[in-house]
Amino acid sequence: MQTNQSQQPGQTLNGAESLVKTLLACGVDTCFANPGTSEMHFVAALDRIPGMRCVLGLFEGVVTGAADGYARMADKPAATLLHCGPGLANGLANLHNARRAQTPIVNIIGDQATYHRPLDAPLTADTEGWARPVSVWTRTAQRADQVGADAAAAVQAACAAPGGVASLILPSDVCWDEGGQVAAPLPPLSAPKVSPDAIEQAARWLRSGQPTLLVLAGTALREAPLADAHRIAAATDARLITPMSNARVSRGRGRFAVERVPYSGDAARARLAGIRQVILVGAPPPVTFFAYPGKSPRPYPEDAQVHVLARPEQDLADALARLADALGAPAVPVPDAVAPAGIAKGAVTSEAVAQTLSALLPEQAVVVEESVSFGRAFYPGTVHAAPHDWLQLTGGAIGAGLPLAVGAAVAVPDRRVVALQADGSGMYTVQSLWTMAREQLDVTVVVLANRKYAILLGELAGVGANPGKTALDMLDIGNPDLDWVKLAAGMGVEGARAVDMESFADLFAMANKRKGPFLIELVI
Amino acid sequence: MQTNQSQQPGQTLNGAESLVKTLLACGVDTCFANPGTSEMHFVAALDRIPGMRCVLGLFEGVVTGAADGYARMADKPAATLLHCGPGLANGLANLHNARRAQTPIVNIIGDQATYHRPLDAPLTADTEGWARPVSVWTRTAQRADQVGADAAAAVQAACAAPGGVASLILPSDVCWDEGGQVAAPLPPLSAPKVSPDAIEQAARWLRSGQPTLLVLAGTALREAPLADAHRIAAATDARLITPMSNARVSRGRGRFAVERVPYSGDAARARLAGIRQVILVGAPPPVTFFAYPGKSPRPYPEDAQVHVLARPEQDLADALARLADALGAPAVPVPDAVAPAGIAKGAVTSEAVAQTLSALLPEQAVVVEESVSFGRAFYPGTVHAAPHDWLQLTGGAIGAGLPLAVGAAVAVPDRRVVALQADGSGMYTVQSLWTMAREQLDVTVVVLANRKYAILLGELAGVGANPGKTALDMLDIGNPDLDWVKLAAGMGVEGARAVDMESFADLFAMANKRKGPFLIELVI
Repeated sequence: MQTNQSQQPGQTLNGAESLVKTLLACGVDTCFANPGTSEMHFVAALDRIPGMRCVLGLFEGVVTGAADGYARMADKPAATLLHCGPGLANGLANLHNARRAQTPIVNIIGDQATYHRPLDAPLTADTEGWARPVSVWTRTAQRADQVGADAAAAVQAACAAPGGVASLILPSDVCWDEGGQVAAPLPPLSAPKVSPDAIEQAARWLRSGQPTLLVLAGTALREAPLADAHRIAAATDARLITPMSNARVSRGRGRFAVERVPYSGDAARARLAGIRQVILVGAPPPVTFFAYPGKSPRPYPEDAQVHVLARPEQDLADALARLADALGAPAVPVPDAVAPAGIAKGAVTSEAVAQTLSALLPEQAVVVEESVSFGRAFYPGTVHAAPHDWLQLTGGAIGAGLPLAVGAAVAVPDRRVVALQADGSGMYTVQSLWTMAREQLDVTVVVLANRKYAILLGELAGVGANPGKTALDMLDIGNPDLDWVKLAAGMGVEGARAVDMESFADLFAMANKRKGPFLIELVI
Repeated sequence: MQTNQSQQPGQTLNGAESLVKTLLACGVDTCFANPGTSEMHFVAALDRIPGMRCVLGLFEGVVTGAADGYARMADKPAATLLHCGPGLANGLANLHNARRAQTPIVNIIGDQATYHRPLDAPLTADTEGWARPVSVWTRTAQRADQVGADAAAAVQAACAAPGGVASLILPSDVCWDEGGQVAAPLPPLSAPKVSPDAIEQAARWLRSGQPTLLVLAGTALREAPLADAHRIAAATDARLITPMSNARVSRGRGRFAVERVPYSGDAARARLAGIRQVILVGAPPPVTFFAYPGKSPRPYPEDAQVHVLARPEQDLADALARLADALGAPAVPVPDAVAPAGIAKGAVTSEAVAQTLSALLPEQAVVVEESVSFGRAFYPGTVHAAPHDWLQLTGGAIGAGLPLAVGAAVAVPDRRVVALQADGSGMYTVQSLWTMAREQLDVTVVVLANRKYAILLGELAGVGANPGKTALDMLDIGNPDLDWVKLAAGMGVEGARAVDMESFADLFAMANKRKGPFLIELVI
């Protein structure tokens, strides 16, 4: 067993202590946690060993979503600490989102002792079975002297390009048994470069003169690769697009913009009519979110050719740079920013909110958007805002926004986080507000309170139904109205209500200057 | 395809309509729902077809826990309506509890269209894989003309003794395609009776003179079988016990009481020392909740014989009655009730709360207890309260209490529901309060606000750790304090805070007389 300097010769550790020391040695120094009985030795080890920041969530969906938001901004994984199968289950929806975001997470799940599990105590569940569908790597630790090595393998697996959830299940006896061995970090499995042939092939496709769509995802959405993608587009007339939802896009004034595939299949098909070639750069072939009777599930023409420049696990930035060079594409200047139109006044509309965001977004803000139906204007309308990163709901499992904001704020404490949060989805993980208050995170939460599942009303109309009372009742969350200012106060977060654009602008500007969290309920 | 009178000859239905009509024909007339896009045809069908009561939850854990509470009190299943794999995932923890409670639930999960699933759209997940560990029956519907039959099979599977979760996954095209066929109910798979040999064998064990423990669970905990169990105990000196946590116990004045296996392994082993025979009546062999280093996971002596009178799926009431007859055991009178000591005064203790509950619990109340550490005196201390049913957290997945209260209140609207709810676990499914307000359910919520994960502090001490700041911070939820009165107000539920037993008694008496919900934050 390889050990490193974290363990002194002759030092006796239990399994939990070797696990904590190994995580720290691997650079994992933040743990989002909701522990239970079976994790007490792990908690005790965190206590004895300095260096791990522990952030408590009052529900596991907060924990896993925060770990996602953290890694999106820190570009390295946090650990989670969950309690048994049901604790994992509560965190699965946001692990699903993390899987779609290709976020590295070291997902640690305390569980029954190895010899207790066959006795089928009340809390015993199929922990491995639930973990596997969201994980790139799943292992149940078996022995205290191996759990350090298990942890190093988990970190390596989580960070293997493009990133994913590595689930390490931790029976309690593996934690409390003596003989823990601290493991050295394993070599990173970084993104392989695409072959020269692939670059040449892509250059030929792009020179063919066919109307071509370049679909960018993952790390291709950072500042430098986007600039290279724009070189390619300028030299070949290829169109650039990203999926509707992305883990992180670097954008704003001084950066290249890129549009998204519209959510609506009809709008997307109209937008992509005439495309003959689709070239994928770390992206899957675009697909509509849902199927609709008699409509194509693909937003591009059925007979378009679909090519791959780079798979998600490959080095996307390198591929774009080399392809631009192969095309002899010169650098292109970033288009001049249009000066924001200033603060919007009057009635609250999606466009008005986007305008005010453009005017007031702090430099280097992190925008977490889970705005669902109302936010249609937010992304296009903030293209000239101050430079910022834009984080989205990647897997469609609502309830990601507030936890992502928690994690991002922990990862980049010198930047303001702005959470644009629909009310219906916000309720899924409303417990996040408490963690924001406890950790005094610099988050401005804007709750878009339409008091209905508005997107579903649109969908119901889309299926041709003329909704009656039963249907409307199932899509209306305004009886009774949620009072977000009281909910926030109940969890220690100050807040206020805005009912027009003037009061919104005042509150938004004030909130962004504060230390700690503030919630604005924007009635829409 | 067999059809019944719910479908008129020549009537054309889509799959969703045939599903709703089949559920109604099978006696399933309540649906706890959190629908999404893929369920819009189902929602439209619920709209067009009268007879199904739809109750909306703002989070799937509310939906599944409410379906559990409903069936525990209605003795028949409700349907759920969940949205895709992640929606199911959010409901899994309470489905785990329902599995442990052997609760019949028709668990319906809308999902991607059959032909859309292979395209791996963002929300696509391993819905079947997540459902299977909590389900007695899992099926993905394939065709509109078969989904009626699928639904009838799901109801049959859910109700097959002892009851369980039947998960029916519902691709959206199966809903919207025409050709739905309403299926007739399938014959119930009721509990088989134990064999005469098993009764005779058990009678011999009981006559052996060995110290014997009779472990009762499931339907053995209703009023009549408990009376027969007491006949057996009186005739043979056998001791009666139930698991620590049970789906439903009928108890209070005029009914026979039964003690529970203590939560603490040490206390349980002390209580059961000297037992030579364990006879199981619908119960698994008792096991401690967790393992602890060097301690037995069994609360009874390791060398005791374990026998089975009846398996959980057998007719437990019949088995107890026949066994009592075989033993020639005469009827025994219910012990005289001790008059409650009256309302407790002064400091808030577990015993004082139990005393006040005893004095003030309404006749035929439904008590939902998720009191975790503070509630140790509640069960023993309310044995002489007015007749009531006692519902518990059966699977250890916290966050069951408030949803169970929602479901119980929907099932038995003429009875008061009293939810004794620890604060830490209450936060898991705090969204339940909104459904209580919306449906104006007669629930008195008593939040036991100790502002810490108190049970974990005890566990941490139990592992010999002297907790430092990191550990204490992970177990303390009092920074910031949760304000439950504000949280309730934010979701439309009136509430007030009690800080001593006098104010608690006043609020509790007042709340139980109201229509609709009321929340008391009891600071402990």
